[in-house]
Amino acid sequence: MTINTGATLRELRERKPLVHQITNYVVMNETANATLALGALPVMAHAPQEVEEMVGLAGSLVINIGTLSDHWIDAMLLAGKAANARGIPVVLDPVGVGATAYRTDTARRILDEVDVAVLRGNQGEVATLVGAEAEVRGVESMTVGLEPPALARGAGKQFGLVASVTGAIDHVSDGDRVVSVSNGHALLAAVTGTGCISTALTGCFLAVRPGAPLDAAAEALIAYEVAAEDAAAGAEGPGTFHARLYDSLAALDPDTVDARAKYVES
Amino acid sequence: MTINTGATLRELRERKPLVHQITNYVVMNETANATLALGALPVMAHAPQEVEEMVGLAGSLVINIGTLSDHWIDAMLLAGKAANARGIPVVLDPVGVGATAYRTDTARRILDEVDVAVLRGNQGEVATLVGAEAEVRGVESMTVGLEPPALARGAGKQFGLVASVTGAIDHVSDGDRVVSVSNGHALLAAVTGTGCISTALTGCFLAVRPGAPLDAAAEALIAYEVAAEDAAAGAEGPGTFHARLYDSLAALDPDTVDARAKYVES
Amino acid sequence: MTINTGATLRELRERKPLVHQITNYVVMNETANATLALGALPVMAHAPQEVEEMVGLAGSLVINIGTLSDHWIDAMLLAGKAANARGIPVVLDPVGVGATAYRTDTARRILDEVDVAVLRGNQGEVATLVGAEAEVRGVESMTVGLEPPALARGAGKQFGLVASVTGAIDHVSDGDRVVSVSNGHALLAAVTGTGCISTALTGCFLAVRPGAPLDAAAEALIAYEVAAEDAAAGAEGPGTFHARLYDSLAALDPDTVDARAKYVES
Repeated sequence: MTINTGATLRELRERKPLVHQITNYVVMNETANATLALGALPVMAHAPQEVEEMVGLAGSLVINIGTLSDHWIDAMLLAGKAANARGIPVVLDPVGVGATAYRTDTARRILDEVDVAVLRGNQGEVATLVGAEAEVRGVESMTVGLEPPALARGAGKQFGLVASVTGAIDHVSDGDRVVSVSNGHALLAAVTGTGCISTALTGCFLAVRPGAPLDAAAEALIAYEVAAEDAAAGAEGPGTFHARLYDSLAALDPDTVDARAKYVES
Repeated sequence: MTINTGATLRELRERKPLVHQITNYVVMNETANATLALGALPVMAHAPQEVEEMVGLAGSLVINIGTLSDHWIDAMLLAGKAANARGIPVVLDPVGVGATAYRTDTARRILDEVDVAVLRGNQGEVATLVGAEAEVRGVESMTVGLEPPALARGAGKQFGLVASVTGAIDHVSDGDRVVSVSNGHALLAAVTGTGCISTALTGCFLAVRPGAPLDAAAEALIAYEVAAEDAAAGAEGPGTFHARLYDSLAALDPDTVDARAKYVES
Repeated sequence: MTINTGATLRELRERKPLVHQITNYVVMNETANATLALGALPVMAHAPQEVEEMVGLAGSLVINIGTLSDHWIDAMLLAGKAANARGIPVVLDPVGVGATAYRTDTARRILDEVDVAVLRGNQGEVATLVGAEAEVRGVESMTVGLEPPALARGAGKQFGLVASVTGAIDHVSDGDRVVSVSNGHALLAAVTGTGCISTALTGCFLAVRPGAPLDAAAEALIAYEVAAEDAAAGAEGPGTFHARLYDSLAALDPDTVDARAKYVES
């Protein structure tokens, strides 16, 4: 397995996988637009009556707990189990875990009942899930008691999945290998939902490389953060950056993205 | 009855009709902003406790099934029947029909229980509803077994309404006359919710011309797609196109829109 | 107490208060982004299972009834009471009050059961709540039977809170003193959710100055509307204005905002 972001992006645009997203109210428009701009097809559906049927059409399932309520949790579990039964990879974004027991318990329950391929969160969220010391404020991660690469590796090992822990530098690990990505731009932190977008794009790449979740997760972050670098050039602040981010995702060039990728493996 | 987009737009901006929208979570902000930019007033309300009262204040009702759940269906039916009782025209957008039984059954039930003036959907959705062969992926339409003009005419006739079937070329029909509109821009397909916006704007035009649903539906598409042409000029991709689309709707000139309209009647 | 928008803004950016928002589906992304752009941290959470815990982490609570349903009302009341018990200030935006009995009754119930620090609404909404004559169309206020300064003063006195009544000129009153703010730009009325954003930013300022709700509410409007003036310069319409609004909030300069503020006290 190797990281080849351009090759996966090219295949994604040819195959246009459907990515089923059960996500929060705040970012639905944004994750759908990022999915489309990259070249995949989003679909949002959350009714227990249809999620099992819908996920059967999809190349991957994205579960994001950012604005939870009980009937949405039911749908997440139903969809996750249906995805597992069909071999469709699942990405989980544990938004706000550590802020309230409801979120922490729900993320743990999903990890327990659904076979999650990639867990994409910030340091505070992932540290909370592995039981390490963490300070979380609302949906923002502050400080954690583990070095981020060790956190990613520990989470990957503990849950038997790929942990994609994002921050100024991102660390993606399957519990053994760690890929650390340092592309991106500070403006990403000034726009809400940019973490949720990284999760949705992880779902897009995973739909193309379901058998290589570590590589797919790293490639998704590389592609997204190279696009963010392009969007920041010429932006006047978070609002114009946000609009330009979709332009940059759509314009992302498979021929040059790998030369621009900044990552190390350890 | 004739198509005179500029005259209807001018009247719309004078009267500023209230357009009640029961729509999906993904596009609520976008359809509200498009409604405002055009010159009408949007209102979103979905509680069974208030939809009948709210629709009574409105010039039209837009029902969009993009992110369904059971209590929203109840509200759609209540609002639709209340609109019918008061002679307020109803537009239905059957988002994702054909992808899941839940969506298909719900759209059929609304068509059965509510007198819908305009059905606005893509080819796959409308083909599914008329029972023709269709391939639908999530909320995207792929291929259908009927020529689009015949599909629009057949849907208009079968359901006794105006079918507005959008795509690269749009076909709008009351089951007899077909108006085919070829304005627009490829970037519309790169932004989520652009179909839902066309439905909302159909509601705006219908509020001004409730007695001429075929003309109103065609005028809405002409106005929207001429604005999209303006938005695309100078856009750098889907994100800046999206922001510029509201600028262009607000700047749309009633004096020149008809000269720019590209449509044929058959 | 005095109005010093720059000083409060500077403190806000240092302290980055968490602002818990229980708001409507249409504007969640927008109010979160405005909160972030200004320099505070938004968190959206509406489940009865977590709102009491979440609000305990926050510097203020924003309640907005724009897209109500019964389980959201339960959450608003639970969160409001928990905020009161902990001395966390509450802002209420009574969106659409006067349009339907459901909205009017809900706003009255919240005012009755929760100690609201600031009521932020348009003239029609506030006039409805004080029992004055008002014409409301959907969520738009048309005409009211009281002069706006008297309306703000009357609402402040009647409910024992700060009434922040926005329009072309805003009037903010604690029932005694009235601060009238005339910054802003006409494009604010062309974008949906700009009123809701003013409410969210009121929550941000209130988190920094919980003991001075009149000053905090006036400062929030000054900051927001000075930013809107900057955003309008160079905007080509409501869409690019909207994107630029977040740029301008992020770029708002504490050193110059007070010199640009236009307000009178009476």
